[in-house]
Amino acid sequence: MSASVAPTAPSSRTRIRRIPDRAHYDAETIAAIVDAALICNVAFQLDGVVHAIPTTHWREGAYLYIHGARASRLMKALTEGEACVTIALADGLVLARSAMHHSMNYRSVVVYGRFEWVTDPVEKLRSLKAFIDGLYPERWETLRPINDKELNATGVLRLPLAEASAKVRDMGVRDDEEDLGWPVWAGVIPLSPVTGIPRTEEDSAVPAVPVTRFDHRG
Amino acid sequence: MSASVAPTAPSSRTRIRRIPDRAHYDAETIAAIVDAALICNVAFQLDGVVHAIPTTHWREGAYLYIHGARASRLMKALTEGEACVTIALADGLVLARSAMHHSMNYRSVVVYGRFEWVTDPVEKLRSLKAFIDGLYPERWETLRPINDKELNATGVLRLPLAEASAKVRDMGVRDDEEDLGWPVWAGVIPLSPVTGIPRTEEDSAVPAVPVTRFDHRG
Repeated sequence: MSASVAPTAPSSRTRIRRIPDRAHYDAETIAAIVDAALICNVAFQLDGVVHAIPTTHWREGAYLYIHGARASRLMKALTEGEACVTIALADGLVLARSAMHHSMNYRSVVVYGRFEWVTDPVEKLRSLKAFIDGLYPERWETLRPINDKELNATGVLRLPLAEASAKVRDMGVRDDEEDLGWPVWAGVIPLSPVTGIPRTEEDSAVPAVPVTRFDHRG
Repeated sequence: MSASVAPTAPSSRTRIRRIPDRAHYDAETIAAIVDAALICNVAFQLDGVVHAIPTTHWREGAYLYIHGARASRLMKALTEGEACVTIALADGLVLARSAMHHSMNYRSVVVYGRFEWVTDPVEKLRSLKAFIDGLYPERWETLRPINDKELNATGVLRLPLAEASAKVRDMGVRDDEEDLGWPVWAGVIPLSPVTGIPRTEEDSAVPAVPVTRFDHRG
């Protein structure tokens, strides 16, 4: 076995210490995991108390975006201090011969940094369009146009994917050599999110269900 | 329309302020969401910096359990300060006639509190068995028995599900009245995790794939 060369983390706090050979710090790996997830968890502190909130996100270039009511406590707090955003996708159940070596295949990302407001209305509009069209290609132009009141009430924040790390497990079972003959099934059971049968609203004016970016999974 | 009676939160910081009619504070709702998820996100602070880590969890009674290397920084830090644990499940994509009313169906839980070590070896063993058997019914007894070294290296922490809240969206599209005739598809596309085709290890001594608690989903 050759000694693996550990990739370099962008900062001390992003360096993965536990099982470092699962670490990735390159932008492509991080972007792909961010794009594959619908929900991130945003952790921050407010008056010394740690809070965390799951919210939906999207990515454009080297930024992760979230949105919400512009007047919310959360959005204000996020632009006033450091946050830690996590994303995790469960890809498979790993069943070993010993309890100790049971595991999961997963992809996760941890990002540290400070969110900043997207204040320019043109940029905000463009970004919300990217969010909708990223989920449902070309849907934005088919929708009832967004109005100034809606745009004004919506806050958009972005976080640089700079101080970020990814951790990935994507392999089979790693049992102890002496356990390999143990009379129990060993293997990986994949997990993936799939779309179910669409529930069209009774008064939907159009029957054709749009394509989503989740349709080719599973 | 009748005014809805808001359920009572166990503490100020668990009270859901944004769309409070999606809030639930009862133990049954919270337990069901915890049980449906494989991964939680654990946020905590260490020397004034907020960290968050995704990890797998299980539940027994009114506690959420996590495990890891007993010597890890994470486990030590978690027992020395307050944590905030989040769980989020994406259940559906909600496609409205306006961008503003696009949404998701989801189930989420936020728990505040301090983790405590499960130190008693008998209790720790029982709990790890509950973790494995909760994923794969009756698997524990079929495995190569755990040994003292493994048990000693494994740290188990538990967090009371006391200061907890759940938030659930489970409904159709809520468009503005005047947009209902807009010529675009409106509806909900369900999302669910499903198991794929098991990948049996080449040297697996037993061919029969065990049942998992995810097999009846989707």
